[in-house]
Amino acid sequence: MPSESRRAAVEISKSLETRSALVDRALERYLPRATAAPGRLHEAMRYSVFAGGKRFRPFLFLASAEAFGLSLDEAMPAACAVEVIHTYSLIHDDLPSMDDSDTRRGLPTCHVVFGEAIAVLAGDALHALAFEILAGMTATFGHPARVAAVIRELSRAIGTHGMVGGQVMDLLAERGDLPHDLVPEIHRRKTGALVRACARAGPLLAGDAADIDPITRYGEHLGLAFQITDDVLDVIGETAKLGKQTGGDQAAAKATYPSVFGLEEARRMALTEMDRAIDALRSLRADRGDVLAALARFVVEREF
Amino acid sequence: MPSESRRAAVEISKSLETRSALVDRALERYLPRATAAPGRLHEAMRYSVFAGGKRFRPFLFLASAEAFGLSLDEAMPAACAVEVIHTYSLIHDDLPSMDDSDTRRGLPTCHVVFGEAIAVLAGDALHALAFEILAGMTATFGHPARVAAVIRELSRAIGTHGMVGGQVMDLLAERGDLPHDLVPEIHRRKTGALVRACARAGPLLAGDAADIDPITRYGEHLGLAFQITDDVLDVIGETAKLGKQTGGDQAAAKATYPSVFGLEEARRMALTEMDRAIDALRSLRADRGDVLAALARFVVEREF
Repeated sequence: MPSESRRAAVEISKSLETRSALVDRALERYLPRATAAPGRLHEAMRYSVFAGGKRFRPFLFLASAEAFGLSLDEAMPAACAVEVIHTYSLIHDDLPSMDDSDTRRGLPTCHVVFGEAIAVLAGDALHALAFEILAGMTATFGHPARVAAVIRELSRAIGTHGMVGGQVMDLLAERGDLPHDLVPEIHRRKTGALVRACARAGPLLAGDAADIDPITRYGEHLGLAFQITDDVLDVIGETAKLGKQTGGDQAAAKATYPSVFGLEEARRMALTEMDRAIDALRSLRADRGDVLAALARFVVEREF
Repeated sequence: MPSESRRAAVEISKSLETRSALVDRALERYLPRATAAPGRLHEAMRYSVFAGGKRFRPFLFLASAEAFGLSLDEAMPAACAVEVIHTYSLIHDDLPSMDDSDTRRGLPTCHVVFGEAIAVLAGDALHALAFEILAGMTATFGHPARVAAVIRELSRAIGTHGMVGGQVMDLLAERGDLPHDLVPEIHRRKTGALVRACARAGPLLAGDAADIDPITRYGEHLGLAFQITDDVLDVIGETAKLGKQTGGDQAAAKATYPSVFGLEEARRMALTEMDRAIDALRSLRADRGDVLAALARFVVEREF
């Protein structure tokens, strides 16, 4: 990778850290206190939300929103909603009846600590909370039509045509009921749909529909680049850096890019998707696309 | 019960049947087709949505919306969203890690038919679909600020301060971790919050805030009357009429009104809540409150 890419990746990595702290501070305000009843549920919600997530999705959404002229304060509630949705999906994915994962990012998963019933309900409560945060934006940000457009975008992205549908296809593939060449379709839904929605939510919240097409293409390629890189890191990554036992996907015979296309080809595919994501930004004003392009480079360059 | 109440109850019972068919027809359009991928998920969603629900919540919401001047067509999408949310909550409630129910309304529950993973995900997909339907109303109904108010109302009602919080408190009570005199608080959250939100969503969607207080009180008392009557019917109801094994709540040492207050006292409490619900409607124009009052009578009069 050329040094330009590496420099951009380092920049984004720093920016991600700063932004992540801001997102965490905002999330702290949105999450119910552990001292309020039912405390056990609120502990579980907080445990998983503050379990060391990279805040990639909020970062992407904030970058997209700022590229279209929104301030950090204006965009922050929706950024938090996106992370709350992502956390709910991880809690449910990890359940014994699903991926049956005992650890995530080096910590015991929600159901291991709080039991399965509380884990299901913590996920459900976060799911509802995300929409409460989004709908509540009309009180502070105003622009109810734009807020409704973002709610529509996100709810579509995480339903049967997106995240949940992808998780179902992934489960079926694991059981050998689906051909493995469906792997891009699975990931387009399971991870890609929400990433795409985060990118699109920027112009939607800004009420600027003119550049929605390039941003959509950017989001689609970024989502694939992100997922393929995740799969690649799962194979080659060091246990310590990732904080989870690597090779887990392979052990469960998951439909991953490296297992279907081989490690080298998967790596090449990630770079291609990165190029396509950056290419999609060409029709935007230069300053609009800069951070988003650097983020695309970071996504395939990162080592965690 | 006086004959006036019985007549009103019979009227509502007929009206409920007619409306239920209309709601079902609309739901048919909103649910993804079983032939679309992933079909297994869509089958599970449809199985539970069309498993013989009484459509009480959509009926209440439609009655409230019409009382405030909205047409049936204008209100129908939100009515469907409410039923979709209710169905998601039943699927998750029935899970082995929760209430572990094998049957509901005389049919095997979702996880018994489709497996636990698909049941969790069918619930999640319905949860997201409800907000997709609601946010989509801005395209047909318009009025994004009102739609956002309804989304906020419903998302609050089904989160940690409402439905999910109540389910957690119920689970803890079952395990003997909470004093049983918390039963009204549990039901205020678990069932009451969504019923209250259905009542409030009428004026919110109509953009008519003047009568929100009496409607709120009505919804709160109606929710309690509904839940207490459910508990009473669970004890005295005939298995055939209810379509589930009665006495199930008692067997699981659930925090119910009859188990805590005795059957007679519980029955008396339901009537008191009915009176209070009807009383709350006195400040509305007579024709506004008529159907809502009849519904309150029906709720305690019904035998299923």
